[in-house]
Amino acid sequence: MGAAIALGERGRGRTAPNPPVGCVIVAGGRVVGRGWTQPGGRPHAEAMALGLAGTESRGATCYTTLEPCAHRSTRGPACADGLIAAGVARVVAALGDPDPRTNGEGFARLRAAGIAVEVGPGADAARRSMAGFLTCRTRGRPHVTLKLATSLDGRIALSSGESRWITGPEARAHAHLERARHEAILVGRGTWNADAPRLDVRLPGLEARGPRRVVLSSAPPGVENDPPLWISSPHAVADLANVDHLLVEGGAGAAAAFLAADLVDRLLLYRAPIILGAGLPAIGDIGLTELAGAHGRWRLHDARALGSDRLEVYERR
Amino acid sequence: MGAAIALGERGRGRTAPNPPVGCVIVAGGRVVGRGWTQPGGRPHAEAMALGLAGTESRGATCYTTLEPCAHRSTRGPACADGLIAAGVARVVAALGDPDPRTNGEGFARLRAAGIAVEVGPGADAARRSMAGFLTCRTRGRPHVTLKLATSLDGRIALSSGESRWITGPEARAHAHLERARHEAILVGRGTWNADAPRLDVRLPGLEARGPRRVVLSSAPPGVENDPPLWISSPHAVADLANVDHLLVEGGAGAAAAFLAADLVDRLLLYRAPIILGAGLPAIGDIGLTELAGAHGRWRLHDARALGSDRLEVYERR
Repeated sequence: MGAAIALGERGRGRTAPNPPVGCVIVAGGRVVGRGWTQPGGRPHAEAMALGLAGTESRGATCYTTLEPCAHRSTRGPACADGLIAAGVARVVAALGDPDPRTNGEGFARLRAAGIAVEVGPGADAARRSMAGFLTCRTRGRPHVTLKLATSLDGRIALSSGESRWITGPEARAHAHLERARHEAILVGRGTWNADAPRLDVRLPGLEARGPRRVVLSSAPPGVENDPPLWISSPHAVADLANVDHLLVEGGAGAAAAFLAADLVDRLLLYRAPIILGAGLPAIGDIGLTELAGAHGRWRLHDARALGSDRLEVYERR
Repeated sequence: MGAAIALGERGRGRTAPNPPVGCVIVAGGRVVGRGWTQPGGRPHAEAMALGLAGTESRGATCYTTLEPCAHRSTRGPACADGLIAAGVARVVAALGDPDPRTNGEGFARLRAAGIAVEVGPGADAARRSMAGFLTCRTRGRPHVTLKLATSLDGRIALSSGESRWITGPEARAHAHLERARHEAILVGRGTWNADAPRLDVRLPGLEARGPRRVVLSSAPPGVENDPPLWISSPHAVADLANVDHLLVEGGAGAAAAFLAADLVDRLLLYRAPIILGAGLPAIGDIGLTELAGAHGRWRLHDARALGSDRLEVYERR
């Protein structure tokens, strides 16, 4: 299932509104097919893996990160039907699909065809890898990651505004990789006007992964050749079409607006081993009036070194 | 040598102006004597270990974290002479003693008596464990640790001043253990006046380890039954008698004053998994005018979880 989840991650940021599913088909102790949701959402992971496996899928075990779909579409057949037709003997899925067109119907159809079905292995990791899809289904809005790059004392720039660079090249490359995993990147109007950020993915081989740019602003940002989308409040992220993962990159006002609206699901905290003292804070006023209200909201999921910097990933509890 | 360093740590914070040395004497593969600098500085670690070993020190190996002293004192004989008289065969020391009364003379006297001498094992850890003594000898001032307890965004309190509690009980207990390892604790006048901090060691068995209290203030703090020491500038820490380790506990003004004066050797950063947004910053203006000046000053030495909080220890590079 770990391999299937890793395959699914390949599609992350390019499959919305479809989930980035991963699939591995194993026969006789050998991997005979691998697949992941393709850009735009089709083919599905199972269809791709079955195509590669060909006749070797007969009697095989299919590991997939999400329940095979039960709905026919003009864009392709239902994966549950495809698995039955290919003659697989067993399907292991990490999670059920909350999509009302499937939601248990995929498993039921497999079982009715005599296929052994197991659900649950790798569920936590699969839930994390498809967080965008699942958040859209359960909360009706994208999964939101807030990225901060700060000094040890939580500053993102000197008082003069100088912020290049707080973190080193390894941390900045990692942040660009994160961009590639999101359909859209949002900044506040202040950051947009002051820095005119490119918000693209500057990594070899991933240049084409340009996420859409979104500006949080009470009025449309200035006209230009390639205008960004704009929303006037954090809650309006629910209206962004085909955005399952949104990366909020700053500045302090945008960060505070999303935190105050309780719309941040994941926090990417890049920290350089420097102290700035006076300077621009990472986060503005979030309306907190007592300390008790701050506790119990975040759980550390990952911590690692990136060059001389450190990355911590916190998740909503 | 690791065992000797651990023994030496027992004296830390109570031996100034003497170093907190540790000593282990091994004969026939067995530990026959252990010692550490006693409160007030005497007996020395080697004298204590020799006393415990008795006649078993004949032909033994003595592991000590610092060069045995070569100077007689009214408070006791030279440890080098004691080791010679006890008939040890070999002395392994982590570091030489920069005290001009010893500074190689201890090793020379041992070698002249036919004792094998090895210097260097465990030098880095020993240097860290005797940082106060060594900083006093080389820089003429105490070793200064700055302690900060912050939210993820570098705040130490809400705008209202509410700061109890940012961190949890495990982190606060660790901070009290750190207090016990320092001869003195300093706060700024604002913190002194606002919080009237007790600055004592609230840990079972260590209540008697009350470090001296020092206030950074342009004028003496208000009279009370048990007035603290006060200094008017960070550089005046050099004048504090019998203080080898100083812990700076806040607030933002005192932290900034010591950082701006480049008088911080070690940074203890306790961080809770909370976000405060607007609030009081951990560190005030340190006079930094360009980012380049902030880089290359700190190196992460330790990172660990303390309950749901995290501790990072940075050292001056």
